[in-house]
Amino acid sequence: MKLSKLVGDRFKERPADCIIDSHALMLRGGYIKYVANGIYSSYLPLRRITHKIEQIIREEMDAIDGQEVQFPVALPASLWEESGRYESVGKELLRFADRNGSPMVLGMTHEEAAVQLVREYGQTYSRYPFMIYQIQTKFRDEARPRAGLIRVREFTMKDAYSFHTSQEDLEEYYMRCHAAYERIFARVGVPEVISVASDSGMMGGNLSHEFMLLTPVGEDSIALCDACGYRANMEAAECITEPVSACSEDGSRNSHAPLTEVHTPDCHTIEEVCAFLHSTPEMSCKAVVYQKNTDDSYIVLFLRGDLEVNETKLTNYLGCEVHPAVITEDSGLTAGFIGPYGLTKCLAAGSTVLFDRSLEHAADIVCGANRPDYHYTELSIDRDLAAEYDISFHDFAKITEGGICPHCGKKTIRISRGIEVGNIFQLGTKYTEAMHMEYTDSDGSVHTPVMGCYGIGVGRLAASVCEAHHDEYGPIWPLSIAPWQVHLCAVRVDDASVRACADSLYQQLNGAHVEVLYDDRSVRAGIMFSDADLLGIPYRIIVSPRNLSEHCVELVSRDKSLQEKVPQEAVVDRIRQLLREER
Amino acid sequence: MKLSKLVGDRFKERPADCIIDSHALMLRGGYIKYVANGIYSSYLPLRRITHKIEQIIREEMDAIDGQEVQFPVALPASLWEESGRYESVGKELLRFADRNGSPMVLGMTHEEAAVQLVREYGQTYSRYPFMIYQIQTKFRDEARPRAGLIRVREFTMKDAYSFHTSQEDLEEYYMRCHAAYERIFARVGVPEVISVASDSGMMGGNLSHEFMLLTPVGEDSIALCDACGYRANMEAAECITEPVSACSEDGSRNSHAPLTEVHTPDCHTIEEVCAFLHSTPEMSCKAVVYQKNTDDSYIVLFLRGDLEVNETKLTNYLGCEVHPAVITEDSGLTAGFIGPYGLTKCLAAGSTVLFDRSLEHAADIVCGANRPDYHYTELSIDRDLAAEYDISFHDFAKITEGGICPHCGKKTIRISRGIEVGNIFQLGTKYTEAMHMEYTDSDGSVHTPVMGCYGIGVGRLAASVCEAHHDEYGPIWPLSIAPWQVHLCAVRVDDASVRACADSLYQQLNGAHVEVLYDDRSVRAGIMFSDADLLGIPYRIIVSPRNLSEHCVELVSRDKSLQEKVPQEAVVDRIRQLLREER
Repeated sequence: MKLSKLVGDRFKERPADCIIDSHALMLRGGYIKYVANGIYSSYLPLRRITHKIEQIIREEMDAIDGQEVQFPVALPASLWEESGRYESVGKELLRFADRNGSPMVLGMTHEEAAVQLVREYGQTYSRYPFMIYQIQTKFRDEARPRAGLIRVREFTMKDAYSFHTSQEDLEEYYMRCHAAYERIFARVGVPEVISVASDSGMMGGNLSHEFMLLTPVGEDSIALCDACGYRANMEAAECITEPVSACSEDGSRNSHAPLTEVHTPDCHTIEEVCAFLHSTPEMSCKAVVYQKNTDDSYIVLFLRGDLEVNETKLTNYLGCEVHPAVITEDSGLTAGFIGPYGLTKCLAAGSTVLFDRSLEHAADIVCGANRPDYHYTELSIDRDLAAEYDISFHDFAKITEGGICPHCGKKTIRISRGIEVGNIFQLGTKYTEAMHMEYTDSDGSVHTPVMGCYGIGVGRLAASVCEAHHDEYGPIWPLSIAPWQVHLCAVRVDDASVRACADSLYQQLNGAHVEVLYDDRSVRAGIMFSDADLLGIPYRIIVSPRNLSEHCVELVSRDKSLQEKVPQEAVVDRIRQLLREER
Repeated sequence: MKLSKLVGDRFKERPADCIIDSHALMLRGGYIKYVANGIYSSYLPLRRITHKIEQIIREEMDAIDGQEVQFPVALPASLWEESGRYESVGKELLRFADRNGSPMVLGMTHEEAAVQLVREYGQTYSRYPFMIYQIQTKFRDEARPRAGLIRVREFTMKDAYSFHTSQEDLEEYYMRCHAAYERIFARVGVPEVISVASDSGMMGGNLSHEFMLLTPVGEDSIALCDACGYRANMEAAECITEPVSACSEDGSRNSHAPLTEVHTPDCHTIEEVCAFLHSTPEMSCKAVVYQKNTDDSYIVLFLRGDLEVNETKLTNYLGCEVHPAVITEDSGLTAGFIGPYGLTKCLAAGSTVLFDRSLEHAADIVCGANRPDYHYTELSIDRDLAAEYDISFHDFAKITEGGICPHCGKKTIRISRGIEVGNIFQLGTKYTEAMHMEYTDSDGSVHTPVMGCYGIGVGRLAASVCEAHHDEYGPIWPLSIAPWQVHLCAVRVDDASVRACADSLYQQLNGAHVEVLYDDRSVRAGIMFSDADLLGIPYRIIVSPRNLSEHCVELVSRDKSLQEKVPQEAVVDRIRQLLREER
């Protein structure tokens, strides 16, 4: 391929709306073009990269007995009604009607289609286990697409579905797939990707992991424990706290002082109240109010004043989506002064009151008094609320930096950011049961198979590799997924000897089945090299009058680890050697 | 791959709703599964076939300097508004709104997206010509999906777009692409595919060809001339007729008898009128009435009584879609008795009257008299209609079997049926002009590039190969696209020597990189062979106790051209030799 014929423009200026480097570099290098919000076209260099990633994924999926299939992009709504997700999934599921008015959806994941494909095949135990996968376009109508290929609306994804006759068999296969994922990420050049426990979200099921590339620009937050190796998405990480009480130092959990109402004029925030009462957020009870999306009824959630609500845990507990509340007069709530004691007397009917477990046995704490400018001090959860509530405490809080590790119990939690490049789920029987998939066992008994599912976003992975491996001048593609292996630069191509040498090398490299991009444009060396940096090809051969005067060409690697002068007749063999070594 | 693990069911009974063999065989062989009207999932065998077809297409597109890119499946409506097709294309363009209410479409072809991708790149003459292509999922909301993968709503298509600075350059590239298509069809095993001139339809442009697999089950009709080689889709074939007149035998075109109104009681059809008046359909003027889809105004089209209307020609002429008329009292039309003479006096305002060129200079013919139970005889178009109409004749009729070849003029036209497996279009500047794509020439002048586009449906091509190459037992896949190269059958696998020999051959074949499907199931030979027939793999190795007693295995080809006994230690070499020979 000659660079002069490569469709796509490369340019120097970083587009203003790019918040992460991979987005900027993929635009600047002629990899992608914006079509609509969260929707891009790809040029040849990215197509070559994604082909290679897809082929690596395919090989690893085949190696764990996967069978490639293909599901439709456009699916009848009836399939999603069978699983119940037509109703339960939000607006990210794009729903539309065809020319006859039949409701349809654009597939954003294919559990339903997978069960539909194998429901008859899987009627006999002897056919289990099996795994099917596809590499196909998906559409997810994201509210906020961002960061180039990291969060788009249309994307190519490998999605795999395994079927088993027991949870144990699923777990064993799940670990095989986990290992296959580690091989995939290593092969595409990001062995640093780690797996973290995750929330299963709309997929359902029991256990799931996300594969994360740790990077400050990631949109996920991950809790890590360096002491024991615990790793979990913040959404899923259990928040553990110690009970708080002013008297707890002497071992007693009971408050001695009685509940006391105090005037707290002009104190609207936790900080203002704490300053006024010489308390701390830890010794306070905070109220966060939501409304259910379904009926706008109120959810009043109490948690320790220094903690934040983990909305994923809240919606999982409720089984429905929520939004921050608009507090009206009808609500019975006094914004800024909401507290648990006496709340039920004024609260609107149909509201829900929840307690985070950070408040379990808490005593001597401050809370709102449910009237303007008043708070209570010395609240004891056990003593003062027993008559009003039948409290059960749940985990609704976000884990915090320096917090307690849910696995080893040490105060060692560290929060990092990451990009999710893959995920695996133990789905259990959620889909097979809802869609009436059954098999007959060897003893004639009928059972519901258990399922796993396993996804990798191809475009997002390409962008993540770029994010992990680039410098200020462009991506540094790993050889395994680079668009070409060698970038041949003819500097001063108007010089007959340069032209002759470069043309000859181009022929020889093609003949040796080396993937070579040949820049034979009559442009300044600076332009040639900045274009080469943007294309990020691992090896670069530079033919120039100066090199040729020394009977050499220059061979450099994009990551600068290699820089040598090689006699022109030896360079093809040297390249072949380098490619062999990296394999 | 072991057949016992292959996901998908094979069965004997032909599904009742299959009108063509490839549809039935692909269902029976576990290639596809119905998901919704015109929407299928694919199992592994078809995925392997389409991968090979895609790779052949990719190689041939790359060989004519194509660059693989990828366009989105979901496109903003604004792109289609730029070209004008958002309005002009019918319901087969699936339109929907995203979560924010923005209008979008599912891509059924990507001219607009192609121009959007290269509009900036192509601003300089020196970058021309170039061609970009993708292999991607498309959605076309067909009114009547049919015949399995032949006419579906969702499909995978290779679509290519070339850009040129002159019509001559486009034409030259068009011929290169024509040749590449011939190579593709030959390589996938259907060298018998022919190209025919076609109607450009909604794509616009000047010249186009379709590649047709001739088969009685095809849904297209093709006019062929064996005398001169003329080949055209019926939709596009010019219909040529000789002028009719009772007096024409003496060389005179003028009718001597005057226009005469006659009572024709109970004669409603052409046949009844002809029988009553002792005339022939050829000597009659038939009226066919349509209404425009846009405003329901009437189109009255007159043509020779023995001819049919080619609606493609009619809608191309009108520039809008039409539907068969509902004749109301307001129309001014007398159904069954419509004729051109005196029609304008009664016809509703805003109606259009058209004349097919088969009526040019026609004389002595019969036509309706525009009142119930009356016809005219001895109508002379030239003599009787000159005062009422300023007639211009156009070609609106279907070419007929035995009709005149528009190329050589002989009465040699033969009509065949065919499946369209590819198409190529010279688009001219329809899209580049509408979407304001321009380039600056070497002299500084600004021009609009000309475009070509080139499509192949991958799934339809797979089904067409099956249609062309099958017997009553299953497909006979050409080696180049077969899901596997060798089908290894272990008959009586419970016999230890059979098991040992088959296992060893399976290992050796895999080791020699031969694609092998191994049937090691403990089933009757009949079941094994009928499954093998349905999978249609070119070479079959049969290991059985009887063969082994002769120290041989059996090697047969699916098309029965080869049947030999080979010593078991020689069969891997023999297979490798056969695969080499076919390459």
